[in-house]
Parts: sequence; structure tokens; C-alpha cells
Amino acid sequence: MPDGIARRAGGRLPWRPAEECGVFGIFDHPEAARLTYYGLYALQHRGQESAGIAVSDGRCLAIHKGMGLVSEVFGDETINGLGGTSAIGHVRYSTTGSSLLANAQPLVVRHRRGELALAHNGNLVNAAAIRQELEEEGSIFQTTVDTEVVAHLVARAGRNGIESAVEESLRTVQGGFAFVFLTPDRLLAARDPNGFRPLSLGRLGDAWVVASESCAFDTVGAEFVRDVAPGELVIVDAHGLRRVQVRPAVRPSLCVFEYIYFARPDSNLNGLNVHAARKNLGRQLAREHPADADLVTGVPDSSISAATGYAEEAGIPYEVGLVKNRYVGRTFIQPAEVSRVTGVRLKLNALRKVVEGRRVVLVDDSIVRGTTSRHIVGLLRSAGAREVHLRISSPPYLHPCHYGIDTSAAADLVATGKAVEEIRRLVDADSLGYLSATGMQSAINGGAVDADREGGGRHCLACFNGDYPVNVAGAAGKFALEGVRR
Amino acid sequence: MPDGIARRAGGRLPWRPAEECGVFGIFDHPEAARLTYYGLYALQHRGQESAGIAVSDGRCLAIHKGMGLVSEVFGDETINGLGGTSAIGHVRYSTTGSSLLANAQPLVVRHRRGELALAHNGNLVNAAAIRQELEEEGSIFQTTVDTEVVAHLVARAGRNGIESAVEESLRTVQGGFAFVFLTPDRLLAARDPNGFRPLSLGRLGDAWVVASESCAFDTVGAEFVRDVAPGELVIVDAHGLRRVQVRPAVRPSLCVFEYIYFARPDSNLNGLNVHAARKNLGRQLAREHPADADLVTGVPDSSISAATGYAEEAGIPYEVGLVKNRYVGRTFIQPAEVSRVTGVRLKLNALRKVVEGRRVVLVDDSIVRGTTSRHIVGLLRSAGAREVHLRISSPPYLHPCHYGIDTSAAADLVATGKAVEEIRRLVDADSLGYLSATGMQSAINGGAVDADREGGGRHCLACFNGDYPVNVAGAAGKFALEGVRR
Amino acid sequence: MPDGIARRAGGRLPWRPAEECGVFGIFDHPEAARLTYYGLYALQHRGQESAGIAVSDGRCLAIHKGMGLVSEVFGDETINGLGGTSAIGHVRYSTTGSSLLANAQPLVVRHRRGELALAHNGNLVNAAAIRQELEEEGSIFQTTVDTEVVAHLVARAGRNGIESAVEESLRTVQGGFAFVFLTPDRLLAARDPNGFRPLSLGRLGDAWVVASESCAFDTVGAEFVRDVAPGELVIVDAHGLRRVQVRPAVRPSLCVFEYIYFARPDSNLNGLNVHAARKNLGRQLAREHPADADLVTGVPDSSISAATGYAEEAGIPYEVGLVKNRYVGRTFIQPAEVSRVTGVRLKLNALRKVVEGRRVVLVDDSIVRGTTSRHIVGLLRSAGAREVHLRISSPPYLHPCHYGIDTSAAADLVATGKAVEEIRRLVDADSLGYLSATGMQSAINGGAVDADREGGGRHCLACFNGDYPVNVAGAAGKFALEGVRR
Amino acid sequence: MPDGIARRAGGRLPWRPAEECGVFGIFDHPEAARLTYYGLYALQHRGQESAGIAVSDGRCLAIHKGMGLVSEVFGDETINGLGGTSAIGHVRYSTTGSSLLANAQPLVVRHRRGELALAHNGNLVNAAAIRQELEEEGSIFQTTVDTEVVAHLVARAGRNGIESAVEESLRTVQGGFAFVFLTPDRLLAARDPNGFRPLSLGRLGDAWVVASESCAFDTVGAEFVRDVAPGELVIVDAHGLRRVQVRPAVRPSLCVFEYIYFARPDSNLNGLNVHAARKNLGRQLAREHPADADLVTGVPDSSISAATGYAEEAGIPYEVGLVKNRYVGRTFIQPAEVSRVTGVRLKLNALRKVVEGRRVVLVDDSIVRGTTSRHIVGLLRSAGAREVHLRISSPPYLHPCHYGIDTSAAADLVATGKAVEEIRRLVDADSLGYLSATGMQSAINGGAVDADREGGGRHCLACFNGDYPVNVAGAAGKFALEGVRR
Repeated sequence: MPDGIARRAGGRLPWRPAEECGVFGIFDHPEAARLTYYGLYALQHRGQESAGIAVSDGRCLAIHKGMGLVSEVFGDETINGLGGTSAIGHVRYSTTGSSLLANAQPLVVRHRRGELALAHNGNLVNAAAIRQELEEEGSIFQTTVDTEVVAHLVARAGRNGIESAVEESLRTVQGGFAFVFLTPDRLLAARDPNGFRPLSLGRLGDAWVVASESCAFDTVGAEFVRDVAPGELVIVDAHGLRRVQVRPAVRPSLCVFEYIYFARPDSNLNGLNVHAARKNLGRQLAREHPADADLVTGVPDSSISAATGYAEEAGIPYEVGLVKNRYVGRTFIQPAEVSRVTGVRLKLNALRKVVEGRRVVLVDDSIVRGTTSRHIVGLLRSAGAREVHLRISSPPYLHPCHYGIDTSAAADLVATGKAVEEIRRLVDADSLGYLSATGMQSAINGGAVDADREGGGRHCLACFNGDYPVNVAGAAGKFALEGVRR
Repeated sequence: MPDGIARRAGGRLPWRPAEECGVFGIFDHPEAARLTYYGLYALQHRGQESAGIAVSDGRCLAIHKGMGLVSEVFGDETINGLGGTSAIGHVRYSTTGSSLLANAQPLVVRHRRGELALAHNGNLVNAAAIRQELEEEGSIFQTTVDTEVVAHLVARAGRNGIESAVEESLRTVQGGFAFVFLTPDRLLAARDPNGFRPLSLGRLGDAWVVASESCAFDTVGAEFVRDVAPGELVIVDAHGLRRVQVRPAVRPSLCVFEYIYFARPDSNLNGLNVHAARKNLGRQLAREHPADADLVTGVPDSSISAATGYAEEAGIPYEVGLVKNRYVGRTFIQPAEVSRVTGVRLKLNALRKVVEGRRVVLVDDSIVRGTTSRHIVGLLRSAGAREVHLRISSPPYLHPCHYGIDTSAAADLVATGKAVEEIRRLVDADSLGYLSATGMQSAINGGAVDADREGGGRHCLACFNGDYPVNVAGAAGKFALEGVRR
Repeated sequence: MPDGIARRAGGRLPWRPAEECGVFGIFDHPEAARLTYYGLYALQHRGQESAGIAVSDGRCLAIHKGMGLVSEVFGDETINGLGGTSAIGHVRYSTTGSSLLANAQPLVVRHRRGELALAHNGNLVNAAAIRQELEEEGSIFQTTVDTEVVAHLVARAGRNGIESAVEESLRTVQGGFAFVFLTPDRLLAARDPNGFRPLSLGRLGDAWVVASESCAFDTVGAEFVRDVAPGELVIVDAHGLRRVQVRPAVRPSLCVFEYIYFARPDSNLNGLNVHAARKNLGRQLAREHPADADLVTGVPDSSISAATGYAEEAGIPYEVGLVKNRYVGRTFIQPAEVSRVTGVRLKLNALRKVVEGRRVVLVDDSIVRGTTSRHIVGLLRSAGAREVHLRISSPPYLHPCHYGIDTSAAADLVATGKAVEEIRRLVDADSLGYLSATGMQSAINGGAVDADREGGGRHCLACFNGDYPVNVAGAAGKFALEGVRR
Repeated sequence: MPDGIARRAGGRLPWRPAEECGVFGIFDHPEAARLTYYGLYALQHRGQESAGIAVSDGRCLAIHKGMGLVSEVFGDETINGLGGTSAIGHVRYSTTGSSLLANAQPLVVRHRRGELALAHNGNLVNAAAIRQELEEEGSIFQTTVDTEVVAHLVARAGRNGIESAVEESLRTVQGGFAFVFLTPDRLLAARDPNGFRPLSLGRLGDAWVVASESCAFDTVGAEFVRDVAPGELVIVDAHGLRRVQVRPAVRPSLCVFEYIYFARPDSNLNGLNVHAARKNLGRQLAREHPADADLVTGVPDSSISAATGYAEEAGIPYEVGLVKNRYVGRTFIQPAEVSRVTGVRLKLNALRKVVEGRRVVLVDDSIVRGTTSRHIVGLLRSAGAREVHLRISSPPYLHPCHYGIDTSAAADLVATGKAVEEIRRLVDADSLGYLSATGMQSAINGGAVDADREGGGRHCLACFNGDYPVNVAGAAGKFALEGVRR
């Protein structure tokens, strides 16, 4: 490994849908940058590609961002160097090929009203269309993230101050989003009218905080106040917090995958605890697809909650059957890439003592391409498992997402166009059961923390049933555009 | 964070006891370096401070080592650059202050018989005495690890070839150790007569492998053959494998902390599966210290197995009550160090939904200084737990270890000179129960994988009961020596 | 290039004049990126803060840029990764405080006509005014370099293709500039109507190349063809090279400081060799300010040429009286910053053997704040020089530059408001002589390489005589604007 | 220290002769580490591969070393972290293949008398023989530098304290060396009986300093006191400085290549200024090999002094005919390695304006393999030089060095077995003249700074005339040994 340092800031410039990300914001705290650092660290599971923090000292903005984990991008020196009393931060999901520092957020721009930092989680289905329109009018784009589109909209909005400019912009964009904005003297946070992407509001002493997930509040010692409502814009400044219902809330459609896979188990989204929801998914799965087995195990870490739910409902003991190596890093050498070494078990190992000679129920949250499932089933078999019954705590994933999840690999989805039996053979399980869509809905609704939040149970299930809450004609246009470019 | 890189190779030179480490070795495989890389990666939990691999191409040795994780020290380029067909590797535990690249292993020396690479896990109680003697005879020391003492002994041993030189050296040193040696044409592996530190032998195709834990065999796709026996030296060369009982095996004394905390749950040590042993510890703990509670939870990751055992035995549901952040890295900014920020929950968070209003049994493997336990109990209480009953799956830790575990902080051990009730008040639990020493022994013996391995149940419990299997007079001398120097 | 990257992308966002930089471009060569790397390396003296290369493979653009030297930002991997058959590159001068990766060039933007990369050397006096106007119309700015202003202008220009858009933009901006543009299928290069900043055109086999200085052609093995003419736009595409006189050339005003200090001695600018020009400056200086001395010496490296000219004209031997440390790097620890250590001579040392007991003529190219000059005179005195006669190969620097040289420290210029005698006392010389403005002009004109390039002798001397070839009202506006912001 | 650093400590372990290096030492100064840093920086030309500083705080030693330039290995943090009031430092020459951090100096060892740091410049011709003997007695070696041999000798020497141990060791080793030693309370410096390698003694306030070259004294503001005498050991401790003539000085044999090439022009070695010596070499060269030419130029930087001497003596104008790129770094991408790009002129460019149509005398200090000379002659020709007369300011290099210069490439030396006319054709010069050995001697002697130091003129010329001042039988044995190993 060489001595020199290449400070990467480059790569190709493709235009692609936004990915799963995490945002955090805090207003008026002497350690705003440091707390944002901890907040992002709590949201690290939502994105490991890049991290960034923009701060305001009340007069102007500063920004630091970079590729890698929060702990790699920031050190004491950087955090202290940022200073400031308000801040927003962002972590971004890693996908091959589009790792561009230029695409790291927050974005900081200067426009006629001054400086603005902004970051978001989600995907704007009409971003490409707006972008094309803006380009037609002579705008330039320096990144491939749709955040930049909103920066343009804010800058071009009518002449009544930054708040109404943000409002106007939020009325233009369609899709799923949770936005945080920072100006020298204001923090703004907004959520799309369907509430596809989560965003919560909390309080740390006198300071207001916002975060993609409530676990970030626990980490910084803040108290959860409420979720930002679908269609709502929250503004915090020296006069305190006020709210604007920018657009009427429509059909509530929080992404169900947040419960199934994305969110941390200790987060509560729309009043539902994620761990509890997963456990209910497991319970429902046991009811729908029972198995004659000796033990239940789950794929660590995301499927442990569902597996314990399955075990409880089925009355079969839950066991630790798979052990995960905790040191899998981003820079790990993959055996397949470079050598003849095969059969290496890097991430997971099966516990022979537990599974040998036993009939095992293996719970996982989803099957993507099938290769990983097949590998894990194989691990259990070669550790002596007599039978392996694979149970999936969500329905077959069939339709692309347009509201913030990267489905660029949609063509590879194993479930598309295959019968369950075909998939079972492919992953070499003795039996295979997917949770039903209705089962999933009832399971999640039943897990509501607050009885009075009935709406909590209504989610976007488009990836499972193709029922898109927001028209994706614009999105189609986007893909067409991309087709032209390549 | 500075741009330049200070390639640290320095620092003060203290003389201190060895720490917990991991070793790996492989003989005669075209991808020896790469497989050692994966082997070390599987043993990463045994040491994160430094990593090193020495290889032989049959004629001479090459070495690469550095500070940090295996994935940080090695890249494709380095692994390919090493080449070779045999290799040994080492990972070293991180403790503050003694992080010296000079102390990273393997050590490679040239002596009259040629080149020798060596690495070990353990502590030699008479290393300081031997070292002083060697110094009196004019030897020089360039590191502060006792591995270097053995290198000297090998070089000075009688004139009958490397094997008898290693044998002679192994007869001189006292304490706990698992050694791997590499010469241009040989791999040697040895274990102390008490078998304090684990070392297993496996087979990958035609190649022989050794590793501190059997999980490394699973990772590289090798098969477990047997444990290296206490007092045994194994030699592998072009003619195959042979063994020498260098010293008669005495009272079997595998470190019981390997089961309680150190080893990976998917490893089998002396025929006992670690996960199974932990589960038994939890069961025994439930029998000794039952609790009237609503749920059982464990501190991730090391106490999950024991917690599930407790839950099963007690008939109380096991629940995921604590969530661990998976991204705690070595370079993370600690809040306490630099700022006024308090109340930050970086590593663990409690699941309010699970524990609120409930009586919780919290299982942990040990109490060191008490601050962490107090913090975790506090997490549960502030998440609404009505009662917290702390259960420890090992007896109070009272006596320093002389065979390979870093007990430099022994003075801080909370259990020393305190009644259990005092500790309970200190950690603010509603009740506190430690597993008894006899309970621990019977629990571990009961977990034997192979019924025919009766010896498996006899372990070193010195840290709990002060019964040291090997005289530590030499060790006392060592500490006196260190006292002089400071 | 991998691990250990301080991925800086942050800092405050001030708006400040552009600095001295270097540009390079090449069209249609299989190793375009690599040759641009070598070209930038030849221009490294023009900027050490950041380096960047944008390439085209005929269909789309890719970019890599970073902070530091060309050899630090780029490695084999990066260069090979860029690929492409056409490229432009940029190096940027380092000044404290504004070191922002966001400001590194080339800038790559996407607009309605596709992708565009652009980079320039110079300063646009009306950039702030245009920027304000663009902001009023809703444009956003992500950097503080005026290159971004031109990107906006190109994107907003009339609808007749990229060439006419560039033309239109170049008609709008005022000041001194040498621009290179790259589109997927075209390379464009342009120079301001006064020709303040240098730009040359060359040929490497069938490929066209452009560079700030002709020394870059020598480095890549290209042949010099001609200078890009003031006001000219050169376009290279698959059909070859063609030119447009975008604006009529007005009073030729190549920055005289290129000859005095900036350019490399082996470059020819506007037909004048820089070394020859410097030697002539030295000769003229000897005529204007003779000295009764034993030897002539120059401050390495920039004043060696002038010193040899002085020596020849004066008939006094030229001697190596000062030795420069060749290893002064960017990360060197300065003694003044952190310790009590004083009297350290890091960069220069005097040759006692040469100067002891002698009367020395010391030739330097300019006096900025006087501290360096005073330090060097002191070095010579303490090495035993009997007399030190300081001779400056340019007139006193009195007026700020608006066309591309960073004069932010203008307030500190020692010459402003001081008589020569005052400055002499300050630098502790026995005598002090500045070259006259007319002497400078005649010296440079006399050094013309080509007798037929008469225009070569007409330069911008504004920093010496306050005669600004281009109205700087806009610049005044700019400074006012900046005043408002802080 | 931050993100993911592959801290190299590896590579093959060859046993090879020592290379040209630089040493520095200082005793009893509150900023010992910092001043050593500056001292090494002044000696950086003597070695760019690695740098190291060992310090003492009066009680124990600390060390920091690494691969790279002084400014890369050390930062403020490291220097401050080292602390201490006495220090020694070392820079090491870079040669391909043997770049091992393990070989970086100073070496710090612990032996029966305590801690010892040591570093040296030179080569011990009997190191291999001693090493073999030590190995026979059971010693181990961890590096391939002969410094380690001396560490062993010191540790094994009779029981009368460190000083007599060092003395005893210095009586054992043969060859060329300049040693610095540091113990917790003492600084020692020694030079071989022939004085092959330079070492000077200076004073900075009350602190004593030693350095390979006097330029380091100028850099730290110290005063030159005298050279350490051949065969002398200087000891500095709390009682001041004293000296021991360890071995009688024999035939004075300072390496003549120090004057020709290695040393900095502002250093005085054995009372001779290096620049002055080079100028005299140039003068003598002009007398021996006049040329009918229009100008004289030298290869920067090392041959400029000789070229000015030639010019003065020949009465032909000295001109700057070649320009060197000041940014050639260690990590620069070489064109030949990886691409089809040819004809790239990275380090040097010819000044067409100066040489076109002229007859040029090109002065260089030596011809090694001839490829560089051929390249430079070609540069001048393609810039239009009518004739190129190559003049070398030293005799043909014919014999390997055994006293500290790396001659591993001896087989490639162009002069071996070739007539001058053959070499001329090879480098494509119009004429070629080497300085004669006697001419070289008289030139250097004539340059003595102090008339009373007549001995200054007697040097080792073994590489030119094969007259080795010290028997190299041991060295022959060494090479034989190495032959066996490979």
C-alpha cells in the first residue's frame, strides 16, 4: 500500500436515483457539530459511503464532508474546526460505481438570499424532469443528486424570503423525501406529503433536533417530541419553532422496508418500534408458514428480532445458530476477486454444536439475488443441519422503488418471474415461506406503540404489490433520459 | 486530520506482561499468505492493535506487519507481494500506551541456523529472569515482548538443528503460551505443559494449519483435526507432520476466560464449544441466582449466549433489550475527552418498547471496574425498566493473571475487597448474583462436545480462586524489575 | 489510492480574487490523461495547492482532483482509471485560508447542451457583478472561483451550440484569463483580448495541445506552434483546429511578472524566452545601478538568471553565494510557530568561503514585505560579507493586480509609501537599487526571440505604474460586495 | 494517528553493504528533538529513504522513525511527543528493494547496562565476519544493517561501563564509519581511523552538537568547532565534553566523492569548502580538457559549481543551459513503466534560446551507466546545440567502494572495461574528457580553506584507482557470504 495520499474527488458522472440515507439537524447548541457527529454515528447504518456536516455560526456556513464512515471523515480537529451553534449532517449509502465526493451531502450553495446548506433522504420522482427544465433555462448541475435540483428551486423561488422559497420548492417536487436545510440563522426540516421517508423531531435542553430515526435522539441524550408530519415544514430560528403544512397530507405511506430491514431496532418510526414490528412479522410468519423443526435461528443482525418472534409463536426454541464476524470492513480483500482460494467463510459461520443433526428454521428478512440465501443454507447444511426451512419475514420483492431505495439491481431480483418452488430449489432449502402482504400489514399495525396513532399502520408496499402511492410517470421520464445518455 | 502520515515506529520502551493474542500458521499451500490473512481475520477478536504475517518461499522469509486491524494492515498488493508457500500470522490485543510497532509480531530474526519467524499468545512468567540473564551475558533486546526472549534461547541452544533448539527453549520457559515458528522449510507449533492458551491443528487439503481457535479453520475451509496437546511440539515439513512431547503434560489448565469472554462462540476449545459452554454458564447462573422477572436480556455480543441459557433455565422469555452500534471504530471521538457533551450513548441503547415497565434480568459475563455495568443498568432504568437484576456468568475477578491476560488494571478491579452488596449498590442494580466457581466448573464440564474428552473440564481458575497452576515467583521478580525501571 | 485519506471537502466559503494558476489541454491522444499529468507537472511552479484533470472518452467526462502536488493527487491507478482520449488539467496556487477542494479545478458541470469541464488562469474583474446578477436571477453558486461564473454564462447563452455559447460568454467577461474547456467531443482554449495571461498552442504528433507555458510542450515532447492570440478562441474537434477572433485584440498586456518571477526560465511567452528576459533585466539593472563589488550572486532559483546578466554587464564575477535546501516541503514544521528555537536557517544558507571579506551584489527579483530580503542580507553579513548591495530586477511593487495575481497582502507591500532609502535601512543593505519601469520594458523588449514579433514587448505594468489596461470599476464593485459580506 | 495506514514494516531480508547516510546529535538542549529535526533536514540530501530520531529525557530513551523524508516522518505532534533534552538522528539513502522500516535508524536496544540508541553513516568491512561469529555464539539479528553488529559488540564488551564498551567495539570494527550513540545520560560520537566518512563537532549555546556535515550547524544556528578526528571518540555528558583516541589515526582517507557529489556545497569537510573544491575541480578539468566552445553549462544541481570553475578557467561564458523541475518527488509516475508515452522530459529541459546554434561544454560530476549522460546530450542537441563537449569533473569510476557508498550496480558502471572513445560514442558527445586522478587530488588540495590544514588534501580514491586504504579481505568474505544465501 503506497505512502502517498490521493485525495479523491472524482469519477464518472452518472445520473441515478437517490439512495437510502440518514439526516440529522440541531439548532442553537454550543456543541452543534459534535452532537451532529454523534447523531450521524447513530444513523451510520443508513449509509456508509460518505458523511458530511454543515454548520452555522449565526453569520455564515462551513462544511466538511468526505468519503467513508463518520469516524473516518471526522476527527477531533475537524469537529473543533467547524465550530458553529447549528448544524445539519448526512450519511449516504454505499453503492458501487457512484461513489463521488461531489455527490456527498450536505450541499452548500450561495444564492441571492445568502448561503444555504441542504441534505435529504429519499428520491424525487420528478427530479429529472425539473432538472431538464432548469437546464433548458440555463442552469448548470455539478452533482448527480436530486438535492441539487431543490437548491436551484429555492434559489429561483419568488422573492419573499427563504422560508417561502423553501415552501415553494417543496410544493414542486414529487416523491419521497425527508429534507433538512440550514441557513445562517435557521434550521428547516420537511417531509413529503405521503411520509415515505421517516423524520422525527426532538429536544435536547433548549435546542431542537431532527433526525431520520429516533435512535439518534437516544444517542445524543435528546427527547423524542413527535414525528415531523407528512407534508409539514418545520422552521426553527431564534424565535423558536413553528410549522407550516406545506402540502396536505395524503395517503400515509411510510416505507415498509424501514421496518423490515433499514431502521435500527431501537428506533420508533411513526410511533412503531422497529424491533417490536420485526418480532410481530416473525410471529405472523410462524402463523402463515409453520415448520416441523427443532430450533429457530436468524441471520444476524437484521433478522434476529423476527426470528425470536417466530420462535415464540411457534413454540420452537430460538438458538444462536449463526455467528457473524464483527470486523468485516469496507476494505476487506474479497477472495473471489483475486485468487484461487474458495470456500472461505468471511462474514458468517454456523454453530455446528447447535445445528448438527437438527431441523432448523432459518429466518431472513428478504431474498435479493438468492446467492446469499443459498450460501447460508449451505453453511447450515455443512454444519450438519438435517433440514433447513427458510422463512422470509416479507413478501417477494417484485417492483422497483421510486421513493428512495436503490433498486438499480431490480433486474437481478430473484423473485421476479419465479414461482416460490423455483426459488426454494435455487437456494436449496427444504421448504420456503414468504410472509404475505396482508400478513405483513396486520403484523406491523399490531405492533403500534401508541394505540391512538392508528394511522401508523398504513405504509407504502409498492415494492411488493406495485401499488404506487405517487404517480411515477415522471420517474419513467427520468429513466428514458438516462437511457439517452448512455 | 492531518494530510501527512507519521509512520509511527516508536514510543517509550516499557517492559510489560504479554496480552491476549491470536496466532495462525499454514504449511505448503500456494496461497499461504492469503489464507493466513483470512485466518487472522477470523481471530481478529483476539487482538486489534497490530497484525503481522511472515512467509517463507522455501528459501527465505519475508514479513509485513503494522498497527491496526488485519484489513487495515494488509491489502491485495501486500498479500500478493508477500508470496510464499508457508506462513505464520499474529494479531495483538490493544491496550493503551504500549502500542509499539516494534512489538508487533511475528518477530523475524536471523541466527546461526538461518532465519526464524516466531509469534505467540500468552505470557512467560520467567521471561524477565531469563532476559536479565541473557543481558548479563551480553544479549541485546529490541522489543519488550517476551517472544524475543525465546528467539534468543533458540539461537543459543545446543548445536543440533532448529528443532532441538526450539525444544530446548520450550523447556526453559515457564508460563502460558501457544507458539508458532516458521523457518524457511518448516512450521512448528507448541503449547505450554498446562495448556493455558488454546491451539488447534487442522488440515486444508494437503496443507497443515494451526490456529488459536477452531473458528479460523471454518473461515479458511479447513477441517479441525485435534488440539495441540499441552507440552507438545508439532513440526511440519516436506516429510509431513510429526510430534514431540517436549515436556510432560501436567495439570490441564486451559484459561476459563476463553469460555467466558475471549473466544468466539463458534470455536471449540479442548473439545468444548464456546457458545454451548456459555449457555451452560447461563443455565447454572439461573439455578444459583434465580430472579422474579419478566424478561432476560444480555449485553451484546459476548453475553447473548449466557443470557439465552439463563432464560431457558429460568423459563423467562429472552428478549433483545439492548442494541449495539456496529460502527464503533478505533478512531471514534470519545465525548468525555474533549467537550462538555454528556449523556451520549455511543455503543449501547436500551429498547424502551421491550423493557418499559418490566422487571429485567440483565446477564453480563463479568464486572471489571463497575462503571460499564452501572452505565448499562442506568440505560435500562431510564428506558423504563421497573427492576434490574444483574447476573454475572462468572465469579468475582480477584487475582491477577500471569499466563497471558493483561491485568495491568488489576488495582481497579471492583470486586477486590468488596462485598457483593457493595458492588450491587455501586452498579445500582436491584439485585446482583455472581456465578460460583464450582458452578462455573460444572457448567463448563457439562458442555463437553465429546463425551470421551474428560480432561476438557479442567481449567485454570486462578483469577477467581488464586490457585495458580504454575509458580509465579518468577513473575514476582518480573514486576519487581519493572518497578525498578519506573 | 486507498486507505488513510483525509477526505477534506470543507472550510469557510469566502469570495476572493482568483490566483496564479496553470492550465493544460490535449485533444485526441490515447494517453491524454497521462500526458496532461506530465504537462501539469511541468507547470507545477504555477500552483501547488490543488491539481485536477478532466477527461473525455468521446461520449462523457470524468474528473479527478485533489489538494496537493500533481504527484500527490495522481497515481498510476488514478491516471489509468481516468482513461479518455482528450483532457484538460489545472494546477492552483496555494494561499492560506482559501484552500478548498470545492475550489479545485477543472469544474465539471452538466447543462442543457451536455457536460462541460472548464479551468482557467486569471481573474475576471466583473465576475462579482455578473455573479450578483446571476444570483438575482436565481442561480446558485457552489464554489468561490470565477470559473463557475463562466460555466453559468455558457449554460445560459443563446441556443446555437456550445461554441457560440462559449463565444458569447467570453464576450461578457472582463479581465485577464486563459481558459480551457472540454466537452465530450471538443477542446476549446481562449485568451482575453489584452492577453494578460499566457497560453500557447502546440502539436504532439496528430494531437493538439495547449498550455500556460511552452515548457509543458517540451516536457511532453510536443512542438510549439504559436501563442493563442489575445481575444482568440481556438476550437479543436474531430475536424481539426479552427479559430474565432471572439473579441478584437486591444492593447497587448501580457503580465510582466511572468517574466520577472512566475514563468519557468525555459518557457517562451509571446515569443520571449523567460531566462533571456531575466538576463536582460539583470543587464539593465547593472547599467542603472552599478556597484563597486567583488562578486555578484542571486537568490535561488528565480533570480539566478538576472544575477548572471548583472554579472556579465558589470564585469564582476558571478558566484554561487547562497545555497537552497531542495527539500522544503509543504508540511515542513516552521520553527517560529511552535517553539523557542530561533536562528534556524531552513531554506537558504550563505557560502562563507565565497562571500567572506567580499563586497557582494545580491540580485533578487522583488521585495515583498522586506522580511525575507532582510533575512538574506543578514545571512550574507553573518557569513562575513563586507558589503551587501541589494539590486532588484523590477521596479517597486505599488499597485494591486486585478488580472490574476493574488495581492491580498497588498497592504503589507513594503514599497507602498516608502522611499528607497527607507527600504534600504529596513533590509539593512549597504545600497539598494530597483530597476526602472522603462528600463524593465526596454530590457524585456530587447530579449525578443523572434525579431518579427514586435508586439512582444508591450506588457501590463499596472502593479508598478498603476496604468490598468482594463477598467477595474467592476473590480471595485467586487471589493465593495465582499466588504458587505463580512 | 488517523485513518487506515498500512504502516509498512516488511519486505525481504537481504544482507547488503550500508549506504550513504547522515547523522546528527545534540546533548542538553530543551529542544533537542526539534533541533535534530532541523539538523536532519539540512542533511536530507544524504538520504531520503527513512528518517529517525531517538531522544533521552535523562532517564530513558524514546524513538520515532519511519520511511520517507524528514518532513513526512515527523510532524509537530511527533516532535513534541518525543520530548527529551538530548537526541541523535539519522537519514538513510534510498535504494530499490532494501527499503525496510526495520532497517531505519537509530536502532534502540536494551542491554545489561541499560538502553542504547545508535546510528551511523558508513560501512564496516568486517561486519559480516563479526556477525557470523556472533551468530555462532548464539546472537540473533533483526535487521540487515551493520549498526546492529556494533550494538551487539557494545552489549558484549567487558564490564567497565558504556564508554569503555563503545571503545572496545570501535576497536573491533574495520571500514569507514561515523557513529553517534545516545544513552540516557550521554552522547558519544566516533569516526573511523582513516576518517572515510565526515563528522563535525559544533556548539549551540551550551549544547554540543555533532553532524555529518557542517551545513547542519548553519541550519540550527550552531557554530562549527572542529572535525571529529579520525580514530577519535567524543563523549558528552553532564560534566562536559572529553575525547579518547580509540585508535591511532592512520592514512587520512576522507571519501573524495563527498567533494565530487555527496556533500552540500555550503558544507566544509576536513577544512575544505565543498563548493570551492568543486570549482577547483572544474578549473583543473578546463586545464586538462579544454574545448573550443561558445558556452559552458552544468547539470543542475551538483555540477553547477564545477561548471562555473571550468568557465572561469577557460574564459568561456557560463550559461544556464539546463533547467531542472523542482517538483520531482518520490512518488512520481515514471512514463517508461506503464505506458507507451515516450520522449517525456521530466527532470531536465534544455534552454533552446541559450544553446541553439552554439558549441556547448557540458560539465557533469560523473558518468554512471551512461544513459543519463546520453539523455542530457540529446536534450542539448535537440534544442539546437551545434556541438556538445562533455567534461566530467572526476576520473572514470572503476572500483567498488567498501566504505559506505552503495556500489551494488558496479557491474553496470559504463567505464569498466571501456575506452573513453567508446564511452563518448555511447553518450553521443562530440568530445569527452574525464578529470585525471592526480588533477583531482591537486584541485581539491588547492581548495583548502585553512592553509595550515595540509592533511586536508589526502583522500580515499579507491573507486578511481583501486588503492584501498583498508584491507577488504573481510569484505570479500562478506560478498561470498551473500553469494551463499541467494
